[in-house]
Amino acid sequence: MMKLYYATGTCALASYIALEEAGAEYSTVKISFATNEQRSPEYLAINPKGRVPTLVTDRGILTETPAMLAFIAQSFPKAKLAPIDDPFAFAEVQAFNSYLCSTVHINHAHRPRGSRWADDPAALDAMKKKVPETMAASFDLIESKMMKGPWVMGDSYTVCDPYLFTLAGWLEGDSVDIARFPKIKAHRHHMAERPAVSKVLAAQKG
Amino acid sequence: MMKLYYATGTCALASYIALEEAGAEYSTVKISFATNEQRSPEYLAINPKGRVPTLVTDRGILTETPAMLAFIAQSFPKAKLAPIDDPFAFAEVQAFNSYLCSTVHINHAHRPRGSRWADDPAALDAMKKKVPETMAASFDLIESKMMKGPWVMGDSYTVCDPYLFTLAGWLEGDSVDIARFPKIKAHRHHMAERPAVSKVLAAQKG
Repeated sequence: MMKLYYATGTCALASYIALEEAGAEYSTVKISFATNEQRSPEYLAINPKGRVPTLVTDRGILTETPAMLAFIAQSFPKAKLAPIDDPFAFAEVQAFNSYLCSTVHINHAHRPRGSRWADDPAALDAMKKKVPETMAASFDLIESKMMKGPWVMGDSYTVCDPYLFTLAGWLEGDSVDIARFPKIKAHRHHMAERPAVSKVLAAQKG
Repeated sequence: MMKLYYATGTCALASYIALEEAGAEYSTVKISFATNEQRSPEYLAINPKGRVPTLVTDRGILTETPAMLAFIAQSFPKAKLAPIDDPFAFAEVQAFNSYLCSTVHINHAHRPRGSRWADDPAALDAMKKKVPETMAASFDLIESKMMKGPWVMGDSYTVCDPYLFTLAGWLEGDSVDIARFPKIKAHRHHMAERPAVSKVLAAQKG
């Protein structure tokens, strides 16, 4: 049985939903960022990066959302969470997820986590100031060029969808109005209607 | 036949080497960052992100290094560039590459490309100042916790290796002495001895 370490409000939600959609047997452990639990010796022994998510499997631990999402899709092929038998179509899924991870998540992180990249308080303020612009630019590109609709990859739901849902959930806090992106706004509603999503959102609150 | 758009000194080198190692038939197009060619209408029509690398395949275009590397490994299974028949081992490859993409490359990018995340010149200076620290921290983690050696994944050469080689090549410019990381320094020498690597490095200069 797999075990997912997550924190609320983080990108770990994507893997949590994917595990639920896959029909996986799994347990979860909630990590508290408020008490900096991700930097505790106990957690660092599990994941030396001091970040979430971490997925503990019977083969060892995995980190990094794009890798975990591909692993979940490949480990539960009946759930059809990615076109795993078609290298090009699978690469399109992976390219989308990599963009979310290395561009969109990074844009967002310059608001709450600018201290990763600069120490000067004025620089942190300058970073925060630009986040609405960079997040809007990324979601403009997703809306206009990347998302096929109604799901990210078109008619088939894939592991891209919980990941997009998770990062789109940060728009309001980043002062970007999701109404600017009609496809992404509709996607949020489609996601909210899925039983797996409701179940995970409720479980996170518990 | 595939076509790779690249620019010298960029992460595109990883995919270039991987194509060569795979024995792929491919052509290359060098993009000039000096003339901002990546933002030209012609290039944006190919890749609306305005970045390199871009891989043109007979099915369409692919972007994002981790996705391209997995695609190359899956498309040329005889080259054995990733454990593609073992989802967990494949996920370990992908997790490593995702870390390079979303943490290490991002750390580095705060030196030459801080204007992605802030406009204030003083903030850009503050970002540049921290790059030696963040790059050293990332390579410490790779050296001590992630790299199995002699190759990233142990005895088997994978697509992680050209990617690590590419990003480790930025350490000197980021004012980090590679001698601090004996395994990564040895890895550079092992990479330089591979015919595919010599061929690509020579071709880039041409």
